[in-house]
Amino acid sequence: MTALKTDDFMAMKGAGYYSQATIGAKHVMDNAAGLILDALERRPLADDGTDFTMTDMGCADGGTSIDMVGRVLSAVRAKCPSRPIRMVYTDLPRNDFSQVFKNVHGLTGLETYAKSISDLYVFASATSFHRQIVPAGSLDLGHSATASHYITEVPMPIENHVHMVGATGATRDAWRAKGAVDWENFLLNRTRELKPGGFLALFNFGIDEEGRYLGSTGGVSMFDTFDRIWREMAAEGTITEAEVLATNFPQVYRTVEEFRAPLDDPGSPVYQAGLRAEHVETRVVRCPFAVDFERHGDAAKFARAYIPTLRSWSEPVFLAGLSPERTVEERAEIVDAYFGRYEAEVARAPHGHAMDYVHCYMICRKV
Amino acid sequence: MTALKTDDFMAMKGAGYYSQATIGAKHVMDNAAGLILDALERRPLADDGTDFTMTDMGCADGGTSIDMVGRVLSAVRAKCPSRPIRMVYTDLPRNDFSQVFKNVHGLTGLETYAKSISDLYVFASATSFHRQIVPAGSLDLGHSATASHYITEVPMPIENHVHMVGATGATRDAWRAKGAVDWENFLLNRTRELKPGGFLALFNFGIDEEGRYLGSTGGVSMFDTFDRIWREMAAEGTITEAEVLATNFPQVYRTVEEFRAPLDDPGSPVYQAGLRAEHVETRVVRCPFAVDFERHGDAAKFARAYIPTLRSWSEPVFLAGLSPERTVEERAEIVDAYFGRYEAEVARAPHGHAMDYVHCYMICRKV
Repeated sequence: MTALKTDDFMAMKGAGYYSQATIGAKHVMDNAAGLILDALERRPLADDGTDFTMTDMGCADGGTSIDMVGRVLSAVRAKCPSRPIRMVYTDLPRNDFSQVFKNVHGLTGLETYAKSISDLYVFASATSFHRQIVPAGSLDLGHSATASHYITEVPMPIENHVHMVGATGATRDAWRAKGAVDWENFLLNRTRELKPGGFLALFNFGIDEEGRYLGSTGGVSMFDTFDRIWREMAAEGTITEAEVLATNFPQVYRTVEEFRAPLDDPGSPVYQAGLRAEHVETRVVRCPFAVDFERHGDAAKFARAYIPTLRSWSEPVFLAGLSPERTVEERAEIVDAYFGRYEAEVARAPHGHAMDYVHCYMICRKV
Repeated sequence: MTALKTDDFMAMKGAGYYSQATIGAKHVMDNAAGLILDALERRPLADDGTDFTMTDMGCADGGTSIDMVGRVLSAVRAKCPSRPIRMVYTDLPRNDFSQVFKNVHGLTGLETYAKSISDLYVFASATSFHRQIVPAGSLDLGHSATASHYITEVPMPIENHVHMVGATGATRDAWRAKGAVDWENFLLNRTRELKPGGFLALFNFGIDEEGRYLGSTGGVSMFDTFDRIWREMAAEGTITEAEVLATNFPQVYRTVEEFRAPLDDPGSPVYQAGLRAEHVETRVVRCPFAVDFERHGDAAKFARAYIPTLRSWSEPVFLAGLSPERTVEERAEIVDAYFGRYEAEVARAPHGHAMDYVHCYMICRKV
């Protein structure tokens, strides 16, 4: 999840907040590391002294992927003792790259692979994954988890919802079309970067074969709750209708078919550039806070732990929706009240709330 | 200058403080860009489609080098239209790499080269220049300005001064020996990184043929003033003698002979690894604030502008010298008082104060 400036939260909430709030994203990656290790196992990797380059696109603070990256690069090192490894962490310029380096180089409490893998060079890049990040033909393994749903810009406001999963008709079509354009462009840039034989491991938020998506599976829909409380605050006059209309998650959740389309259609530029789907599956990973709640049964405790995991990535969207004529303090107060209200709802009626992760896991190879 | 966490200062002082305070360092690089362009001109650069990699080691916020890097990379692009360019900014993990990316990618007021050079890939690394930063044999041009005087650790306290330029006898010998070890190690790591035919452009703080060094040339020695005021505060009981002893700039200023030694001695590991001096000269670049003062003659204005350029890189050293048993607030107050006293001295008797830059400029090639 890429939209958060970690240090803002660290400063506001104290160290550890971000890692704790994104523990579910870590589970997603840890659980799917096997898909990458299998993909590595399937291919002959020459121990020929050339660079092996891996990217982690949309890395945030690098903490959620650190164990997965360590397992993957250890496997590469075991297969190819002679190859220098370049590990490139990418996110937007405002990301806290200092925190990435502190995590990876072992200056925080996190366990890190960096000291146990020889001939390893760690880099950061702030080039958007909507553009080419590394030179053409230099990439062995491009990885991105829970990031590529961010689109370059909002195609049009959504009149009836804050997220495209609630959009209908022509609005939904416009968002889906924007999602398709950005997805094709994302894959084309990656295909340019890849060496022949190289591969992508993309764990994307999406809509699975049963129509499920993030936070929709517990019984109470997270995005519908986001939308309803925001509109309640408009109805009460705390915010304006124009602000509600301006609040749109700049994200498209794609269906499995939409993910596959450019890879399966021999006429698509992605297919023609040589990218193929090697493995596609969807999985639901349960919300760790809802699982904890089943065990401890304390609704207030659940609400306190649950809201930060939503807030860690959604808060910037609500702040951005508010009028720039409001002071920063005023905007912060409104958003505090908003999440306070969401927390109170969960504490009052906890059952059904859960941010279960719904991902489409793809391994793609360049022929 | 590498020791400052930019955003601490930005937060304390407001945006622009750092760039303004380091304008002299920018002059040093702008004035010496010709040395790098000449070195490029001297060598045949094949337009063969392979990567061209440049590093800027100890980059701080990337702002001081941005014009120089733009001129150099534009020259590379003109000579070699087919070669992807990797530009790698390096500093310590605590550096504000987000600010580096914002500057280079054009998100601040700074003019940047990034959008006018095609097939360019910008990276950051937080690997210390005392270690290998990029894979062996992958570097075309290693650049570092005003950074390599930082040593890995203080060899012993200096009993009579805060900086090794004031040390004598066995203490000075110990610091010079530490400087020699780190310099040889720095050059060995760079030689491993360089391609054959690749080169280094190192603009190092040092001691020139006439014994001059940073801030010693105006009449009033900057480092002696640093030392005297700190001891005055000890004599008055504001700080302790132990704290004065614990205050040591972790820097060695090397003489031209010391810079050249590993490059000229056929028995040295650096020479044997294939590194040679191609051009060595020293230059004094005048303190821009002292030059301004000659024009405007306003002592208080000079003092206000001058102290930040000292403080931007020296403050962490004084903070680190203070006892960890003091609160953070107490330490900040003491250091505020310290620089306030320095400023009052300059305002009262401005003549002779000047942080003239004394650098040794070296171009080294790998055979």
